[in-house]
Amino acid sequence: MANPTSLSVRAAAHEIASRRLSAEAYAAAWIESIEAQEAAVGAWQYFDREQALAAARRRDREGSGGPLYGISIAVKDLIDTVDMPTGYGSPIYQGSRPAADASCVALARASGAVVIGKTVTTEFAAFFPGKTANPHNLAHTPGGSSSGSAAAVAAGMAPVAFGTQTAGSIIRPAAYCGVVGYKPSFGLVARAGVKALADSLDTIGCMARSVDDTAFFIGVLTDRRDLREVSAPLAPRFGLCRTPMWDEAEPATRAALDRARAALLAAGARVDDVAVPEEQRGLAEAQDRIMRFEMARSLAWERVERADLLSPMLAQILDYGMTIGTGEYDAARAAVAKARQRLDSFFGECAAIIVPSAPGEAPEGLNSTGSPIFSRMWTALGVPCITLPAGRGDRGLPVGIQLVGRIGDDVRLMEAAMVAERALAEAA
Amino acid sequence: MANPTSLSVRAAAHEIASRRLSAEAYAAAWIESIEAQEAAVGAWQYFDREQALAAARRRDREGSGGPLYGISIAVKDLIDTVDMPTGYGSPIYQGSRPAADASCVALARASGAVVIGKTVTTEFAAFFPGKTANPHNLAHTPGGSSSGSAAAVAAGMAPVAFGTQTAGSIIRPAAYCGVVGYKPSFGLVARAGVKALADSLDTIGCMARSVDDTAFFIGVLTDRRDLREVSAPLAPRFGLCRTPMWDEAEPATRAALDRARAALLAAGARVDDVAVPEEQRGLAEAQDRIMRFEMARSLAWERVERADLLSPMLAQILDYGMTIGTGEYDAARAAVAKARQRLDSFFGECAAIIVPSAPGEAPEGLNSTGSPIFSRMWTALGVPCITLPAGRGDRGLPVGIQLVGRIGDDVRLMEAAMVAERALAEAA
Repeated sequence: MANPTSLSVRAAAHEIASRRLSAEAYAAAWIESIEAQEAAVGAWQYFDREQALAAARRRDREGSGGPLYGISIAVKDLIDTVDMPTGYGSPIYQGSRPAADASCVALARASGAVVIGKTVTTEFAAFFPGKTANPHNLAHTPGGSSSGSAAAVAAGMAPVAFGTQTAGSIIRPAAYCGVVGYKPSFGLVARAGVKALADSLDTIGCMARSVDDTAFFIGVLTDRRDLREVSAPLAPRFGLCRTPMWDEAEPATRAALDRARAALLAAGARVDDVAVPEEQRGLAEAQDRIMRFEMARSLAWERVERADLLSPMLAQILDYGMTIGTGEYDAARAAVAKARQRLDSFFGECAAIIVPSAPGEAPEGLNSTGSPIFSRMWTALGVPCITLPAGRGDRGLPVGIQLVGRIGDDVRLMEAAMVAERALAEAA
Repeated sequence: MANPTSLSVRAAAHEIASRRLSAEAYAAAWIESIEAQEAAVGAWQYFDREQALAAARRRDREGSGGPLYGISIAVKDLIDTVDMPTGYGSPIYQGSRPAADASCVALARASGAVVIGKTVTTEFAAFFPGKTANPHNLAHTPGGSSSGSAAAVAAGMAPVAFGTQTAGSIIRPAAYCGVVGYKPSFGLVARAGVKALADSLDTIGCMARSVDDTAFFIGVLTDRRDLREVSAPLAPRFGLCRTPMWDEAEPATRAALDRARAALLAAGARVDDVAVPEEQRGLAEAQDRIMRFEMARSLAWERVERADLLSPMLAQILDYGMTIGTGEYDAARAAVAKARQRLDSFFGECAAIIVPSAPGEAPEGLNSTGSPIFSRMWTALGVPCITLPAGRGDRGLPVGIQLVGRIGDDVRLMEAAMVAERALAEAA
């Protein structure tokens, strides 16, 4: 058999269930890649070869299991695991052992998944970066906050990895690292046991190498068969939106959107230009207000009792969050709620709207994870989002395009994403 | 000075800040009551006299603090405390020590509060009761899930106690125990560090002896000065709604609503009969679907890995929750979202709508905490709710009336509640 890491998640689970591939051999293939690359990439906060292999062997002994039977997965270290330390990217929690698995981890394990390790997160999924480098160029950021998850998938160290997004923490690192990143509709994946950053925004999702892998994984976790079995429809209609912050799109991102449009047109799809309504132009700022207000409260204990162990950047942001007035916060929430009610007319007949995933290629340097500007408004709205690799920029680094869908209609978004993914592959 | 337990929270904080009363003496007064009654009532899951007094003495040494400076508070044992074991009402977490305070505890402490202990919760805030009895008649349930918080306030063992509500877990026990229970608008109080039961429903609130105590406490925690300084307006208009489940209202509850109407009319207020629109009649059932679906996921790890330590009742409920289809869940969420958008016409010009708090007096026996039926739809809608003591039933136990307000307009609800509280006191 060829290297099992080349299989899709769905196919690998099938092979393992059919006993043609052992969970241990599957895990070992990823572990080999980890051991070859981790010193350079730094994607893992916690990785223990023997523990990962033992977990895989337990699956093999069980002999059968759920739809993720034997699938190796990576878990962002913002998410609790009962058998691995969970540090939330902060020295405050270094070596901390949660009393339980987070819901999403328990559900994945109950479906047969094998957690092979914890991936690096920025400090509490906010802005202060961890150690991870971009596998495509180690001098560049992998993006954040789900830095390790994106880098692990990009480097072939895991087939699928949990991420979380509060501003742009799945979409941006996935785009920077050249993988697929999927932020489901707000609330689709249960959040218990994930360290809260901003309660009205925090969303669990994943990174993987294909639309199908992400849909299959999240579909299994959420018991949504239509998501799990999603397939490409004949001719969905796309919108293309330059978004209110188009000025911040670099040439690499502009070119990626052009390539996506050309590829879709070549594949016979229709692509309409759509505009964000005037009254929704402040949503990125609203998201920023909401996030800063809520994170100062979510991290109240850390801000008050462990300030000396926060990065100066985060300490300052949390203090600032406490100065945002409740009137300003309420207005931002109200603006988002109002915009959410008007999304139908924005989408019109489009199955998905194409927007930038990030300003451009991953910036140089590991001191910042880049800007979430192109994700803020969509996260605030709670709509499902997915980023697809769409070529490379002038510096040779990956660039993504983001597709956004209707709240709660993740299936339609993923169908459209499959069409776009195929069109981009054919055009490449 | 008279017994400091007779002071309002606001007045006690003022006395302590003015050094006319020490935080230690204030705590000691509550502790005296705990030691006299706890053996019978069983409100506390964790209480250590010396630890509580030491925390109060630290406040006295600090010499000044926030608006809750020196105020003794009780914390439902569903809520994490870094210095006290947190058991979530389950043997699975017996003696468990969280790594941090929950947001609401950290914010209360940062405002000067003294946590004197942890109060009994039902198992994971679901239906299996703890040890607590109703202080008004020890053979009767205190209600749940915030059983210990309601009983502690009712028995004069704490001036204010944190509770949480997913169905009727603040309103019902407060009504059964004859105290004020306030469930703020969904999302008003930050939830990080509270064990999740149903993410789209879980709401933090409190019990206390007066509307002012609850508004002051939650107003301080949320930095909402208008809530903290709320006062009774001249003539708010009330609605009175028999709700779609009026058949389940016992004579004691019907009489309480009649008394409330008469008291408000005597006080010069206007009380209009209002009806729940036809399309909102299924919201209690929708809440039940949503809760059962979400709790099976929130407690996924416990369900799969610690089933032997769950009560048979909860184990069954969680297994059942996994059988609810996503279509049924999505339909319930959609029904709630639709109803939420139509609330304006339900409220009309009313500042608050009066509805039952519970079917009647607290049922006899400690094996069940009674029915949350009269809270389900309001919790689903996310509207703020408050229950006020409104006399007693035939068995001599307290009966409450519930006031519900507009989402996000807790101030207007609390203003109306102050008017109702005064009218009921004048009529008594």
